[in-house]
Parts: sequence; C-alpha cells; structure tokens
Amino acid sequence: MKFKPLKDNVVVQVLEAKGKTTGGLFLPDTAKEKPQEGKVVAIGTGKRLKSGEISPLSVKVGDKILFSKYSGNEVKIEGEEYLIFSEKDILAILE
Amino acid sequence: MKFKPLKDNVVVQVLEAKGKTTGGLFLPDTAKEKPQEGKVVAIGTGKRLKSGEISPLSVKVGDKILFSKYSGNEVKIEGEEYLIFSEKDILAILE
Amino acid sequence: MKFKPLKDNVVVQVLEAKGKTTGGLFLPDTAKEKPQEGKVVAIGTGKRLKSGEISPLSVKVGDKILFSKYSGNEVKIEGEEYLIFSEKDILAILE
Amino acid sequence: MKFKPLKDNVVVQVLEAKGKTTGGLFLPDTAKEKPQEGKVVAIGTGKRLKSGEISPLSVKVGDKILFSKYSGNEVKIEGEEYLIFSEKDILAILE
Amino acid sequence: MKFKPLKDNVVVQVLEAKGKTTGGLFLPDTAKEKPQEGKVVAIGTGKRLKSGEISPLSVKVGDKILFSKYSGNEVKIEGEEYLIFSEKDILAILE
Amino acid sequence: MKFKPLKDNVVVQVLEAKGKTTGGLFLPDTAKEKPQEGKVVAIGTGKRLKSGEISPLSVKVGDKILFSKYSGNEVKIEGEEYLIFSEKDILAILE
Amino acid sequence: MKFKPLKDNVVVQVLEAKGKTTGGLFLPDTAKEKPQEGKVVAIGTGKRLKSGEISPLSVKVGDKILFSKYSGNEVKIEGEEYLIFSEKDILAILE
Repeated sequence: MKFKPLKDNVVVQVLEAKGKTTGGLFLPDTAKEKPQEGKVVAIGTGKRLKSGEISPLSVKVGDKILFSKYSGNEVKIEGEEYLIFSEKDILAILE
Repeated sequence: MKFKPLKDNVVVQVLEAKGKTTGGLFLPDTAKEKPQEGKVVAIGTGKRLKSGEISPLSVKVGDKILFSKYSGNEVKIEGEEYLIFSEKDILAILE
Repeated sequence: MKFKPLKDNVVVQVLEAKGKTTGGLFLPDTAKEKPQEGKVVAIGTGKRLKSGEISPLSVKVGDKILFSKYSGNEVKIEGEEYLIFSEKDILAILE
Repeated sequence: MKFKPLKDNVVVQVLEAKGKTTGGLFLPDTAKEKPQEGKVVAIGTGKRLKSGEISPLSVKVGDKILFSKYSGNEVKIEGEEYLIFSEKDILAILE
Repeated sequence: MKFKPLKDNVVVQVLEAKGKTTGGLFLPDTAKEKPQEGKVVAIGTGKRLKSGEISPLSVKVGDKILFSKYSGNEVKIEGEEYLIFSEKDILAILE
Repeated sequence: MKFKPLKDNVVVQVLEAKGKTTGGLFLPDTAKEKPQEGKVVAIGTGKRLKSGEISPLSVKVGDKILFSKYSGNEVKIEGEEYLIFSEKDILAILE
Repeated sequence: MKFKPLKDNVVVQVLEAKGKTTGGLFLPDTAKEKPQEGKVVAIGTGKRLKSGEISPLSVKVGDKILFSKYSGNEVKIEGEEYLIFSEKDILAILE
C-alpha cells in the first residue's frame, strides 16, 4: 500500500525518542520526551496558490525533519503509525 | 437517491475499523479505534477561486482516502451513514 | 408574504426527521435525530466577489438539500419555521 | 435628530414579537419570542471595497427585514430603542 | 497637550448618560446606562490600504457619534477620560 | 547596547503613572493606574507590504505615545524595562 | 549535524538569564526570569510571498536577538536545547 498525500500534506514516520540516557540507563516510557523527529515517507504535489500555480514542497522523501510538538494527525496504516501534517508544521530539516 | 455535493465537498463512506486484532481476537466496540479511512462516493464540482475560476478536486469517486479524526459532518441517508467534508480535510489517498 | 434573502443566503424549509423506525414503530420526539434535510424555498441574488462580480448560487428553489447540523438561523414567519443560512453551509443536493 | 450610519451599518427599528397567540390569548413577556423582524430607518453609504470602490447596500429605508437572533448593537436614542448592525447580519427582506 | 491619533484611530470624549429620568428623578450611578454617545476630539490620518493609498476617515472633529458598547480603549489625559478606537467601531453620526 | 527592532516593532520606555493625587497625596502602588504612556526609543524599518514595498512607521524616536492597556511584550535590557510592540498597538502621539 | 530551517523559521540558542543579582548574589532557579534573549544559529530561506517571490529574512546567523516570552517551539538536538520560531516572533536585534 502506498500513500499519495494531498496538496501540501506530508506523511512522516516518527523516530522514537531514545529510551536510554547518555549514561546508558534505560528510561521508562513515561520519562521519554515526546518525539519531534521524523522521516518523510511521502509528500503531496504542493499547494495551489491563489494565482493558480502549484507551490512545490521544500522537503523530499527521505528527509529527516523536526516538527513542532503536538502537531499533525496520527494515522495507523497496516499496523504502523504515521503522522500526517501540512508542510508548514515542519520546522527544520536535519542534515 | 444520488448526492451532488456542493463546491469542494466530498461524500465519504466510512470504512469500519476492523474489530479483530492481528491475532484473530474480536474486539469490543469501545476498543476499536475511531475509523479514519473511507471511500469517496460523490464529489463536488470544485471551489470557486477568487479569480472566478473553478479549482477541480484532487480526489475522484472510488478513491480510498485517509481523513483526519473528528473532521466532517455525519449524515444519514436512507439508513446508511456518510461523512461529508471539505476536500481540505482529506489527508491522503491510499493506493 | 415573500422572502428575498440577501447575498448568498438561502431560506430552507426543514424536512422533519421521520418519527418511525424502519420496523414501523413510532419514536418519541427525543429519540428523533436532528433533521438535516430541507427544501430550498428562496435564494439570494449571490455574493459580491472582491472583483465586484456577483457569484450566482449553486442551489435553486425546490432543491432538496443536506445541511450541516446546528448550522443556520431559525426564523418563524407566519407560524411556520424556517432556517436561513449561507449557501456555504449546504453540503449536498439530493436528487 | 437624525442618524447617518457609517459604511455598511443599518439602523433598524425592532418590530415587537406579537404578545398574542393565534387563539387570541395574551402571552406574558417571558413567553414572547425574541423578535427578529425590523424596519430599516437609516442606512450607511456603503462599505469601501479593497479596490477603493464603494459597494452600495442591498436594503433601503422602509424595508421590513429579518435579522439573525442576538446580532446587532442595541442603542437608545431619545427614549426609543434601535438596533444597529452591519448589512451582512440581515438575512432577508420580507415583501 | 494635543492628540495625534495614528491611522484610523479616533479620540472620543464620552458624553455621560443623563442621570435623570424623564420624570425628573435623579438616578443612582448603577442605574445609569453605559454611555454610547461621544464627541470626536481628534482623528487619525486614515488607514493605509493594501494598494498603498490612504483611506480618509468618515468622521470629523466635532461630530457627535454613536459607538458600540464596550468598544474602545479608555485613556486618561490630564485628568480627563477619553475613549480611543478604530473608526470601524463607530456605528453612526448623530445630526 | 542598542536595539534594532524588526519590521513594524517599536521599543517603548514606559512612563510611570504618577504616584501622587492632584491634591498632593502619595498613592500606594496598587492604587496607581496601569501606565499607558511611553517614549519611543527605537523603531523598526517598517513592515513589508504584500506588494513587496516597505511601509514606513508613523512614529519616530522621541515621540511620546499612548498605547492600549495590556498590549506589548515586556523585556528587560541591562536592568531597565521596556515594552516592545507592533506599531498598530499605538493609539496616538501626544504633542 | 546541521539545521536547515524551512521558510521563515529561525533556530535560536537561548541565552540563559543570569543567575546573579547585580549585587553579586546567586539566585535560585525559580527566581530567574524566563530568558528572552538568544543567538541565531540557523535561518530559513525565507517565506514565499503570494506573488511567488521569496521574502528574505531580516536576521542572520550570529545575531543576538530578543524574542517574546512563551513564543517558539522547544527542540532538543544532540542534548542541547534550542527554540525554533517564525521570524515574526523576533522583536529586535541587540547590537
């Protein structure tokens, strides 16, 4: 199954916050920070501007991104969880 | 009876969340996830842009789509439930 | 007495939710669903676009329509109840 | 004293809801419906569009109109109560 | 000291609601209606439109105006109270 | 240290409400009115309009201004308190 | 690891409020003011205007800036905390 996000929507696979402290201790689930990093797995064709033109997205499939906490729609496809959100909720690309 | 949605409205038949775990157990109703998948059964003619042009929809009848939780207007036509919402609440097409 | 709705307003006669189950039982008032179907009895001349043009309505008098729950202004004219709302709250025409 | 409403404001004299049932009984004040009918007593010169043009109003002095519940600003001039609201809160003209 | 309101701001001297009934009785403060009339004492140079043009105000110094309840910013200059608000909160000019 | 406010931001030094009644009595802090006067100490270069042009500010450094209660961002630079706000929250210049 | 903020986003390293009074006393954490100063460590390529043009940012990497309290998205990259926000939440550059 494949995704074809509409307009400026982006499908993101959330990268789990690491459950280990820098000292090597494992953290219980509640102590983990809400993850804010993800990998882009599908992008829309771009948003239609008022002029009629399509504005292409600034991220591409494979980009590792940083998104704002609590943004996005959680969806579950074939047992795997994704976040879908508008490109404007993407804060930065990590290189 | 047929639907003719106005503007960028889309009539969607909700696809029930499967009431069975991957292990084959049946789940009670309250344990089911709120469904977010649906099949497009009717689409509007498109939204009129400020320029006067009509912007055609990006989904077509028969498309299996993903929509955001809690979006849409629930309607019941001849005993069957549908969701009607604006195309902008559609997140992705599943292929 | 006649109505002349302004701009993109539409006067709708609400079609009562049927107080009978498919099995033929009569339902008490509180068990009825809030009706969402209506018949257009008067339409405005259209909304003035920013360009100055008038955008004609997509519904016409006599159309049976579906509208979103809780939308519209309830008015009572000569003892009869109507809903007046902007055309954008009309979801679909039923044919 | 005369009114000169600004822009798309309209001064309306509220027509009291009739305190009598169709059977001829007088209703106490609390049982009356909130009135939604009024008579236009003064209109503004129209709203300035972004293009710079003035968009003329669609109602004229003397029109009997229907307005949405709870809209408008209550003002009292020389002991008489009026409602002033923007033309966009007028739902329909009654003929 | 003089005022030079910015843009479409208007400085208004509030005209006190009369503390006397039509029958000549003096009303205690709490029984007075919140005043909605005022006299324009200073006006801005007008709001800059998107086109770059300045849209002149429709009120002039000395105008007796009607404004909507609770609108405006209360300011006190040299012991006297004024209201400053945007011209769009002015409902009508009284003549 | 100097400020260079961005866009239409203005840095304002708040002028303390006078803690003395007109009769010469000193007022405790809680009885003082929230100050609404200030002196402009730095201004931005202006807001970029949609057309691409920069719209210059209407206030200049040194202006004594009146601003609306509770507007602005409190900042502390080198021990001194300032308010920074958008020019649109400035109501009037006092001359 | 490097950041490439999207559009008009800016990555800022928060400069800690100094935990020392001017008299030299150390302040406990709760007595410190919420910091509002930061250093720009990465900037986006600019926001796309409606005309299609890209509007360049007014801050550059290395700028010491003042931002409004509570604005911005807290992110943690490789153990270090940053704030990412839209350029419009930057109030002033400190020189």
